[in-house]
Amino acid sequence: MLNQIRVVLVGTTDQRNIGSAARAMKTMGIHELVLVQPEELPEGKAQALAAGATDVLANATIMDNLADALADCSLVLATSARNRTLDWPQLTPREAGVKGIQEAVSGAKVAIIFGREASGLTNEELQMADFHVHIPANPDYSSLNLAMAVQTVSYEMRMAALATQEAPEQAPQGISEDYPLHEDLEGFYNHLERALAATGFIIRKHPGMVMTKLRRLFNRARPEKNELNILRGVLASVERASGASVTLHEQQDSTTSQDGENH
Amino acid sequence: MLNQIRVVLVGTTDQRNIGSAARAMKTMGIHELVLVQPEELPEGKAQALAAGATDVLANATIMDNLADALADCSLVLATSARNRTLDWPQLTPREAGVKGIQEAVSGAKVAIIFGREASGLTNEELQMADFHVHIPANPDYSSLNLAMAVQTVSYEMRMAALATQEAPEQAPQGISEDYPLHEDLEGFYNHLERALAATGFIIRKHPGMVMTKLRRLFNRARPEKNELNILRGVLASVERASGASVTLHEQQDSTTSQDGENH
Repeated sequence: MLNQIRVVLVGTTDQRNIGSAARAMKTMGIHELVLVQPEELPEGKAQALAAGATDVLANATIMDNLADALADCSLVLATSARNRTLDWPQLTPREAGVKGIQEAVSGAKVAIIFGREASGLTNEELQMADFHVHIPANPDYSSLNLAMAVQTVSYEMRMAALATQEAPEQAPQGISEDYPLHEDLEGFYNHLERALAATGFIIRKHPGMVMTKLRRLFNRARPEKNELNILRGVLASVERASGASVTLHEQQDSTTSQDGENH
Repeated sequence: MLNQIRVVLVGTTDQRNIGSAARAMKTMGIHELVLVQPEELPEGKAQALAAGATDVLANATIMDNLADALADCSLVLATSARNRTLDWPQLTPREAGVKGIQEAVSGAKVAIIFGREASGLTNEELQMADFHVHIPANPDYSSLNLAMAVQTVSYEMRMAALATQEAPEQAPQGISEDYPLHEDLEGFYNHLERALAATGFIIRKHPGMVMTKLRRLFNRARPEKNELNILRGVLASVERASGASVTLHEQQDSTTSQDGENH
């Protein structure tokens, strides 16, 4: 899907932005870059900023006019600041990602056009697009760096592509942990109650709300087997350490249980 | 909402990335920047790349340690490459945006931590977070530039904020819990470690993996204020009960700590 996506940079003035854009693309799994009339060819400075994405630079195509760069594409998206003079169907980056991947899945070639650092795309260039993509930036300061805009739109393309892949089998999100049997969990709660009684925090016969609140807390965490083992080990050591002074705390129960209840 | 969001850059080596991050933040409407032990202070090079966001740089706070930068935050998100050695509750940038804004709406302070360009965040730093945020990048080349990561997560925060504004009466579902400040949570973990040492379950100087695993468990549960109070009460009573027999268990430390390590 993502290999159906082509990023087209028009009239880029600073080759470093071409390098950063290449890096941004590759981190999101997009590799096809076309440069239309770049003012600087991507050389040393661009390669430095491309970091591990110099292959994207090396494979970039340089063209003289935008129409040629779009010729074999069936969906063309043009990024732009919101444009009142030119009323065109407009998408958010998220909508653009969904639409772009939908068409890519059906084998279509999709182009995303990014304009000049200072002046963006001309109205004539914008009119070559099926949709305009507007990043809903801070109205007080909406000037994203060119490569940042490439990162943002590429990110949404990738998110849409991943969603399409995951959709079929609805992968459970990381629920592969090894959970204890319910009876083991109950065994832990009984042990916890014994240990809290041993320290004098609660009276066994009148635990108040303490056990209920602790159950709620631990259930929310849903301890795994190995975690339950650690907790059992902690409780055992608490019982051992309390042993010597249990009688003392038995006498304090009436007061210490108040502590417990008040919590 | 977005003015409740704080971006925290840890150990940034290149000040130009601080400048680009400031620009990325401001284009998405986020203004609060904290720098923890930056290797270069943001000066000329950073200001050049900040472009129209030099005010974000000028207002940035510089701190000596991460805990101070998070002390007054009730939700802490840490960006990380997926981490197999440290299995922590993980969010996509989109999920992080929704969660961050939900809590910001209820007045909470939200921190997003970004690590060093080369090495990211240490496990110790990652463990200070409630959630890890993983950008689902291209497995063949997942190295986003630092400022690109700031742009992406800030973009999702802004998208979530805009969605909330558009649907104001959509009450955030059950995000009204009263969560403790981060410094209170750290205070609990310190108390827990002292108590486990008092019972002889761990040696203070060699806690092994026990504290990490317990942090992971409790962070997953995300204790509310009243629950944290109960846990503090339990730890206090454990320390009281252990007091009488501490010396005995000091002698056992080497063996009992093995129990801990083996779990």
